[in-house]
Amino acid sequence: MTDGVEPGTVRPGGRTARVREAVLRAAEDALTEQGFTGLDLADVARRAQVGKTTVYRRWGTVTGLVADLLQDMAEQSAPRTETGSLLGDLTANARLVQRTLTDPRQGALFKALIAAATGDVKTAAALHRFYDIRVREWAPCVRQAVERGEVPEGTDPHDVIRAVSAPLYYHLLISGGRLDEPTADRAAEAAAMAARAGVFVRVGGKQA
Amino acid sequence: MTDGVEPGTVRPGGRTARVREAVLRAAEDALTEQGFTGLDLADVARRAQVGKTTVYRRWGTVTGLVADLLQDMAEQSAPRTETGSLLGDLTANARLVQRTLTDPRQGALFKALIAAATGDVKTAAALHRFYDIRVREWAPCVRQAVERGEVPEGTDPHDVIRAVSAPLYYHLLISGGRLDEPTADRAAEAAAMAARAGVFVRVGGKQA
Repeated sequence: MTDGVEPGTVRPGGRTARVREAVLRAAEDALTEQGFTGLDLADVARRAQVGKTTVYRRWGTVTGLVADLLQDMAEQSAPRTETGSLLGDLTANARLVQRTLTDPRQGALFKALIAAATGDVKTAAALHRFYDIRVREWAPCVRQAVERGEVPEGTDPHDVIRAVSAPLYYHLLISGGRLDEPTADRAAEAAAMAARAGVFVRVGGKQA
Repeated sequence: MTDGVEPGTVRPGGRTARVREAVLRAAEDALTEQGFTGLDLADVARRAQVGKTTVYRRWGTVTGLVADLLQDMAEQSAPRTETGSLLGDLTANARLVQRTLTDPRQGALFKALIAAATGDVKTAAALHRFYDIRVREWAPCVRQAVERGEVPEGTDPHDVIRAVSAPLYYHLLISGGRLDEPTADRAAEAAAMAARAGVFVRVGGKQA
C-alpha cells in the first residue's frame, strides 16, 4: 500500500518540526536521485541546509533516518476512499497504489526503500510497519463488505488488501510489466473475485 | 517465477564451461552473503580461483556478470509440473516459488538480484528476461485449462502465472508476511478463481 503524500506540505510545529521536514524531504530527494546506496547523512544535511551535527545527533545513522522517513510517510498518507461496494473500494485502492508507483519521484523513492530493506533488518522492519499501517487504513472496506454480505464471514481483510497491491509491486520490481489503470483495475477485480469465492477465509480467525 | 537450480551441478563442456560455472557459483555466493552492493569482480575471481584478467575480459562489469548469472539460472531452471487441472498446476507452481524464496540461499540471492535491478536498467532488463522465461515455461498450463473449458477463451496465460507469484514476492519484499505452504496454496487458489471468473480475459487478444 502506498500513500498520497503531497510534496512540500507545511505542518504545524516549531523549529524542530521544520528541521525534521527539511531533512526528510532532503532524504527523499537523495533516495530518489541516487538510490539507497548513495544515501549519506552529511549529504542530506547539506541538501537540507541543516548542520551536520544536528542530523547525526537526531537520526544517528542512515537506517535511523530511513525509519523516520517511513514513519513520516505513514503519518502523512491519504485516508481510504469509500464507494459503497467492495469492488469500488478495492479499485480506488489499486488506482492510488498504481498512481503512486508510476509517479517518477514516488516510484523511485519506493524502489529505493524496498531495495534498502532487502539488505538491512531494521529498514525491513520499518518498511513492514509502513505497509501494515496502510493495510490497516483500508482493511475496514473488507469488514463492511462482510457486513453487506458481499464476501463470506471470516474473510481476512489484510489478505484482501495485500492481494490488490501484490500484482502492482510485482510489475514494478519483478516483471517490468505495464503499470497502467487497466492493470490496477484487474488487480482489484482479481482480489474481489477471490474474496467472494472465499479464498481469504481464515479458519479459526487467525490472521497472517 | 523462480527455479529449481541445483547448486554444484556439473555441466558438460571444457575449460571455458568450467570457468563460467566456477565464476557464476562464486557470484551467487558473494550476492547471497553480501548483497549486490558488495559485489566486486576481483573478489568473485578470488572466490572462484580464476585469474582476475579472465573475469574482467569475459564479463567486463558487475552488471555483465549478473546478467550472465540470470541467463544461467533461466537455462538451469526446473520444467513445469502437469497435474491435469488448473488449480493443481498453479498450486505446484506456487509451491515451487514458495520453496525457492524460503530457501535461505536462494531467497537471499533473489532479494539481492531484485534490489540490484531497482538501481540499474541493464540488470532490470536481465531480471525481466529471467522471469519472462519462467512465465513462458508455465503458461501452457493455462492454455490447457482453456482447452478443457476450465477458464474462458481469451484468458491471458502470462497474467495468470504472474498472479500466482505476485503475493509471494509481496510477502518477501514488502510486507514481511509469512511465506508458508498455505500462503502458496491461497495464491494459487486466488489466481485460479479470478481466472475462472474471466478477470484475465484480454479483449482483442492483446498480451501485456
